Amino acid sequence: MAQKPSIPKGTRDFNPEQVAKRNYIFNTIRGAFETYGFQPIETPSFENSETLMGKYGEEGDRLIFKILDSGEYFDKVKDDVVELSNYKEALEILFQTIGEIVVKHNDLKDSYYKDYESLFTKIKSNIKEKRLYNNDIVDSVEDFDSIIKMFIEVNVLAQYKLIPNLRHKEISTLLNKIYNKRINKRLTNQISSKALRYDLTVPFARYVVQHQNEIEFPFKRYQIQPVWRADRPQKGRFREFYQCDADVVGSKSLWQEVEFIQLYDTVFSALKLEGVTIKINNRKILSGIAEVIGASDKLIDFTVALDKLDKIGEAKVKEEMLSKGISEDGISKLQPLFNLSGTFESQITGLKGILNTSEAGQKGIEELAFINNAISELGLSTASLQLDVTLARGLNYYTGAIFEVSAPENVKMGSIGGGGRYDDLTGIFGMKDVSGVGISFGLDRIYLVLEELGLFPETVTKNVAVLFINFGEKEALFSLKAIKQLRLQGINAELYPDAAKMKKQMNHANKRAIPFVVLVGEEEISSNTYTLKDMVSGEQFKLSLQQLIDHIK
Amino acid sequence: MAQKPSIPKGTRDFNPEQVAKRNYIFNTIRGAFETYGFQPIETPSFENSETLMGKYGEEGDRLIFKILDSGEYFDKVKDDVVELSNYKEALEILFQTIGEIVVKHNDLKDSYYKDYESLFTKIKSNIKEKRLYNNDIVDSVEDFDSIIKMFIEVNVLAQYKLIPNLRHKEISTLLNKIYNKRINKRLTNQISSKALRYDLTVPFARYVVQHQNEIEFPFKRYQIQPVWRADRPQKGRFREFYQCDADVVGSKSLWQEVEFIQLYDTVFSALKLEGVTIKINNRKILSGIAEVIGASDKLIDFTVALDKLDKIGEAKVKEEMLSKGISEDGISKLQPLFNLSGTFESQITGLKGILNTSEAGQKGIEELAFINNAISELGLSTASLQLDVTLARGLNYYTGAIFEVSAPENVKMGSIGGGGRYDDLTGIFGMKDVSGVGISFGLDRIYLVLEELGLFPETVTKNVAVLFINFGEKEALFSLKAIKQLRLQGINAELYPDAAKMKKQMNHANKRAIPFVVLVGEEEISSNTYTLKDMVSGEQFKLSLQQLIDHIK
Repeated sequence: MAQKPSIPKGTRDFNPEQVAKRNYIFNTIRGAFETYGFQPIETPSFENSETLMGKYGEEGDRLIFKILDSGEYFDKVKDDVVELSNYKEALEILFQTIGEIVVKHNDLKDSYYKDYESLFTKIKSNIKEKRLYNNDIVDSVEDFDSIIKMFIEVNVLAQYKLIPNLRHKEISTLLNKIYNKRINKRLTNQISSKALRYDLTVPFARYVVQHQNEIEFPFKRYQIQPVWRADRPQKGRFREFYQCDADVVGSKSLWQEVEFIQLYDTVFSALKLEGVTIKINNRKILSGIAEVIGASDKLIDFTVALDKLDKIGEAKVKEEMLSKGISEDGISKLQPLFNLSGTFESQITGLKGILNTSEAGQKGIEELAFINNAISELGLSTASLQLDVTLARGLNYYTGAIFEVSAPENVKMGSIGGGGRYDDLTGIFGMKDVSGVGISFGLDRIYLVLEELGLFPETVTKNVAVLFINFGEKEALFSLKAIKQLRLQGINAELYPDAAKMKKQMNHANKRAIPFVVLVGEEEISSNTYTLKDMVSGEQFKLSLQQLIDHIK
Repeated sequence: MAQKPSIPKGTRDFNPEQVAKRNYIFNTIRGAFETYGFQPIETPSFENSETLMGKYGEEGDRLIFKILDSGEYFDKVKDDVVELSNYKEALEILFQTIGEIVVKHNDLKDSYYKDYESLFTKIKSNIKEKRLYNNDIVDSVEDFDSIIKMFIEVNVLAQYKLIPNLRHKEISTLLNKIYNKRINKRLTNQISSKALRYDLTVPFARYVVQHQNEIEFPFKRYQIQPVWRADRPQKGRFREFYQCDADVVGSKSLWQEVEFIQLYDTVFSALKLEGVTIKINNRKILSGIAEVIGASDKLIDFTVALDKLDKIGEAKVKEEMLSKGISEDGISKLQPLFNLSGTFESQITGLKGILNTSEAGQKGIEELAFINNAISELGLSTASLQLDVTLARGLNYYTGAIFEVSAPENVKMGSIGGGGRYDDLTGIFGMKDVSGVGISFGLDRIYLVLEELGLFPETVTKNVAVLFINFGEKEALFSLKAIKQLRLQGINAELYPDAAKMKKQMNHANKRAIPFVVLVGEEEISSNTYTLKDMVSGEQFKLSLQQLIDHIK
């Protein structure tokens, strides 16, 4: 039963050279983590689904790899499946009913685009009248609510037309989509109770809460493990990849932000990757700006637009903000922000002017100034620190500092690291008021950058130092005695396993780039010597065992 | 939405101490692998299902963790599910029909327990007559065949009674079981196309075939990665655990067996785990014995019974062999085997007598003698090599040498390593005649043994060497300047992040067993010195930065 072997898309095999290079990066990062006082933990590859689901948004839930329960899972769902086959029809009837209600009640139609909340409430109470609520079709209040929400969404999708105006095919397609989504979710919950880790942060939060009584806080942990995402694979984006995270939980001290900047500098300097830029921002600065321009309720839209400044330019950013409902007046107040430039200090001065009416903004400035001052005093080896008020990554998540590291300017590559502070890391698991701050290194991108710049040391791909040619049983045994001594000295040595033709064995050494070959024939055995051939220079030496060790070492 | 956090059964969190201890074992094994000339590869955590399924037997297939396809998988199966709901009824009719046929045909009934093959053929041809073959109920020849096989099995299960004699409830239960098993398999194939790695050997075989053009043979690879099995969790058995494998492919040389024995000795000696026993056997010895006693067709039954000699004793082993149809006469020929004892050499001599009529047996003896002779010449540091003719692990798999390592006698623990030679490793993926030989280390059991014997070096749990007490902003900054220098010297150092009460900070150092604390107050800043407190002795020193480094280093 021969199969053409392959691996799943988005995954990779690593050959010896790639493993060695990856380990060089891992070991450098690990070494720095440890000198900074971080301690390693490891968590299981899969977690209970309820630990992961709902922590990364709807899109994240979709990208989590679910594991099928073992055993005869179908038994659990088969009745449900048959029942659900009828569900679609019922759903269609319900939808039409909602449509009819909306059409009949002109007040509903009028308020349609104005007030989502009241529309929702009115539809719901009208459906109730019709006794369609809590019947066979919907089996929970939540279910019912989400159907009404879908109805509203579907109508928005369908170019603002009410459902009776939609052609039947469109309704059917939409309902099919809703139906499949719902049924998948419902079945998945029943046949899958475990899921592969999506990042290291949520499992870490789970770990902290679960082991809180064993942990001495503040707890500085690092974790270097793979994560899995069912993302569409593309260049540089994989379905299995490593994350290298260091976090501290249990202290709000800004010295930690200072140390994380030093840590980035230490790691990239050790990797000889000079000239990286550590960009920093603060969520409080972003909140402050939104407050000043009167867009506090549109913080996400505002920062998403601002984040694009580098890519699309000032004019388009303003355009996008306008389209999101931020006022002309507000946007004009942003002008000093677009003009912000120069050193960290001069940008801070500029921000003070812009944010003088915002308490949050002032606090953000204070934090940034503290961090910048400390870093100036302590100095960085090869990296530089830069304030970037447009930086907003993971905004929903971070509450204070936001970090991102860019590769040196001569390399085209997205961020090679990032992180920030999140004030309520463990709240999702019921442990309140535990502040966390952490950073992450992007292994795959760092690998590509080091490769592009030729920064992997030659010694990284540690190979076999010496191959003994196999001339037959007696010679092989004599060789293995020497090899044993070489290995005890830490020299990677091996015997060609078969007494093949010498040319074949020499070719093997060449192809594997093994630098030395030892030839042991009858003469060498009788004189207790070893003929060493330097595969680069071609020179040959007749040596004693001790000389052999000294020469290769 | 607070949840009580937990992890899936059979999985583990590792705290910093456990990670450090595990890494100590990994690093020791990795170091030995590399001095022996093995190179690392890594393969993805999940493989395509067809790569794994069918490679580990039916039980193995069941224990493989399957990953749910992402997207709306239910769409793919829903018609099938509805259809399959009717399948059960049809299956029941088919079963009854088979039963009727068997009852009607007395010749079938008579041959029932004697000749499985002819029974199968006869039932099949009779069903054909009745036009039940290839109809709606069974949609493939394979399907049909397996149903007939199930029928036969069910009848054996049902205490040798033909199906019409079974009570209806029993039939129904059995059919339910079959139905669920079949429907699960069918659905699983449709909603899951990827599965978590079950061991490292099959992915390695896949790797070799897929990358055969890049690989220089003989290829010595090692691989240290986790595997997953949906086994029932119990003490010492986990659903996620690491395997540490070294294998060579592409040579039949017995020097490799010799080297693997040396490698075991090197690793366990480096771990200071002295007195392990490396047991060796050879599949050809087992085949030879089976041949000599006239039980070649019962090789599996024979070796399964022999393998239990240690546990259940000679009498019970013989009893089991008898029950499996091995003749009294054959078993009596085994007597010299039970009396086999003494040194490797004397056992070899004994085997020569027993196996003098078996060519395979003689070949096995020759191989064992070669290996033992080489090991005697080369010597082992702390392990000993022992011939164990009852050793049969993974028999279906191994074709030559079979290895197993036992912990020292004073420790109660199963095998802590194992391996062997398999002559057609890559055949399952269409690459013929590639011989492989390899060994594996059982990390979790080695860990337990080292823990029990107190063999982890104290230095393994490398901790922070020094904590700087935080007395406030100015002092913290002064401290961080020193910490930067300490870290550059490779000393793990940290600052307590908050200017908390001194007692709290000292307690923190104590609880984390940090050996040194540095106190920096105004006086120290003005005199540019550091007060070092030795947390073990309680002594205090006033030191310059250089003195501080020297003292801690």
